[in-house]
Amino acid sequence: MNKILVVGSIGLDTVETPFGQVQDVLGGSATYFSVAASFFAPVNLVAVVGSDFPEKEVEYLKNRKIDIRGLVINPGKTFRWKGKYNYDLNTAQTLDTQLNVFAQFKPVLPTEYQDVPFVLLANIDPELQLEVLKQVKHPRFIACDTMNYWIEKKVDALKQVIAKVDLLFINEAEIRQLTKELNLVRASQKIFSWGAKYVIVKQGEYGALMFSQGSVFSTPGFPLEEVNDPTGAGDSFAGGFMGYLAKKGDFSEKCFRQAAVVGSVMASFNVEDFSLNRFKRLQYDEIETRFKEFKRLSHFEGTL
Amino acid sequence: MNKILVVGSIGLDTVETPFGQVQDVLGGSATYFSVAASFFAPVNLVAVVGSDFPEKEVEYLKNRKIDIRGLVINPGKTFRWKGKYNYDLNTAQTLDTQLNVFAQFKPVLPTEYQDVPFVLLANIDPELQLEVLKQVKHPRFIACDTMNYWIEKKVDALKQVIAKVDLLFINEAEIRQLTKELNLVRASQKIFSWGAKYVIVKQGEYGALMFSQGSVFSTPGFPLEEVNDPTGAGDSFAGGFMGYLAKKGDFSEKCFRQAAVVGSVMASFNVEDFSLNRFKRLQYDEIETRFKEFKRLSHFEGTL
Repeated sequence: MNKILVVGSIGLDTVETPFGQVQDVLGGSATYFSVAASFFAPVNLVAVVGSDFPEKEVEYLKNRKIDIRGLVINPGKTFRWKGKYNYDLNTAQTLDTQLNVFAQFKPVLPTEYQDVPFVLLANIDPELQLEVLKQVKHPRFIACDTMNYWIEKKVDALKQVIAKVDLLFINEAEIRQLTKELNLVRASQKIFSWGAKYVIVKQGEYGALMFSQGSVFSTPGFPLEEVNDPTGAGDSFAGGFMGYLAKKGDFSEKCFRQAAVVGSVMASFNVEDFSLNRFKRLQYDEIETRFKEFKRLSHFEGTL
Repeated sequence: MNKILVVGSIGLDTVETPFGQVQDVLGGSATYFSVAASFFAPVNLVAVVGSDFPEKEVEYLKNRKIDIRGLVINPGKTFRWKGKYNYDLNTAQTLDTQLNVFAQFKPVLPTEYQDVPFVLLANIDPELQLEVLKQVKHPRFIACDTMNYWIEKKVDALKQVIAKVDLLFINEAEIRQLTKELNLVRASQKIFSWGAKYVIVKQGEYGALMFSQGSVFSTPGFPLEEVNDPTGAGDSFAGGFMGYLAKKGDFSEKCFRQAAVVGSVMASFNVEDFSLNRFKRLQYDEIETRFKEFKRLSHFEGTL
């Protein structure tokens, strides 16, 4: 089966929402992505943690069949993020960021990783994303994520990344900031002119829009009765999307649309609990059931 | 064919958006609703205007086959609303409201209107909505709209209305304010406990969620390249929804879902231009085409 390479952050998060709080729990873009993707395809992880990173979390990643030969454990402390969400769960307020060992992160792909065909550059410095791409030998499909910080600080490097990837994951506010275009249709066209062939605009609880030249697909958010912590929803979406695409190895419009729904499915599970707690008890048949529920949620007869 | 009764406001709007501005143009909840619905079913309108209301706009309503025997022309000035939208087109900023003849509006149904089976109580004082319901003889389906002003000032009357209607149209912020429940699933359940059987939560550019007991349907917003003026989008949605439902006379889940998409279709046209300008040049085959585009926008294969 097609493997997926992911390069990104692993962190210990302290998160407060109106529904509870957690301290120094498993988090990070690469973590959410890897675990979500691991339900569909084998994942090869590249990331760095400190010597304080809990052994049981390493064991968890191993148990998910995630290849951690690219996980570097450096002396020092693991990356830490502290954030808070108010009742508007769409926007996180960052209270504290401690890069720790992540500050010196220089991603190096183990030899065995260099031929992995599906590549996800999670939200890290675009200059590091470019370094990763130099080490990838035979990619079939490359996607990247980013955030407002890099749009502000390293937009030129980010545009170089976008020129080299197939798909950009980006949230609504960020694509507007990056393209200086309010209208999402025109914003995605600008991304196409820079090189990427697909853009997935993440819209939080409203779902996502997937743009390609000549087509647009809308996947809804799932109307959940319990949303406890939106941290990692975007990474879980990307994980579900890339995992399904790698599993199928099919680049048809049909498969892309299903992959986008699988992304929404994984994001919808993730937000039900803090950290990766929902994924830790998630069964594959629950994924199948929720995929069908998404179909029911958005299905209508096509003739007036 | 089933007729629709609508009771609401007709006004002359002065609107500014980042894409242009218009002064004293045709507007009002009943206007947007009636015109949108008139593409599908005959509309009986109850509203009041002043003696300054342009004759050509009365002619326009007549040309749309809207029954205006319930349109009262009183001495004085027509209701006026002045509003502004910033780049976030989801929220209007009201700059000025002049009720004028609308302040003394006491809706009286012409005898010929009293048997109309489909009823839409547009956004007016809930006490007036209750007065209208007393005059309706054999309703088959009643829907109402409302706004934050009535939630703040007349919540008890509004709850009485909700107890008597089949469906509530309400936007996201308003249902949270009304039910004191942030979660939309639980908010709609609270509305059900008050009596209504369906709730359509309008989410602006993100589309709408239609809740009924045991089912939820998500219709996306249409990713338009040109959005010029969101005024009247919610009323246009309600008009498309009720128009299609009245045309079909079918209360199946299938028909409700199609009606919700027709609502989104009509809202998507309306926002393309100021006032009712887009409806004034809209052809029925464009509606059919966009309905198919909505199908393409949200369709995916249902098995993983």
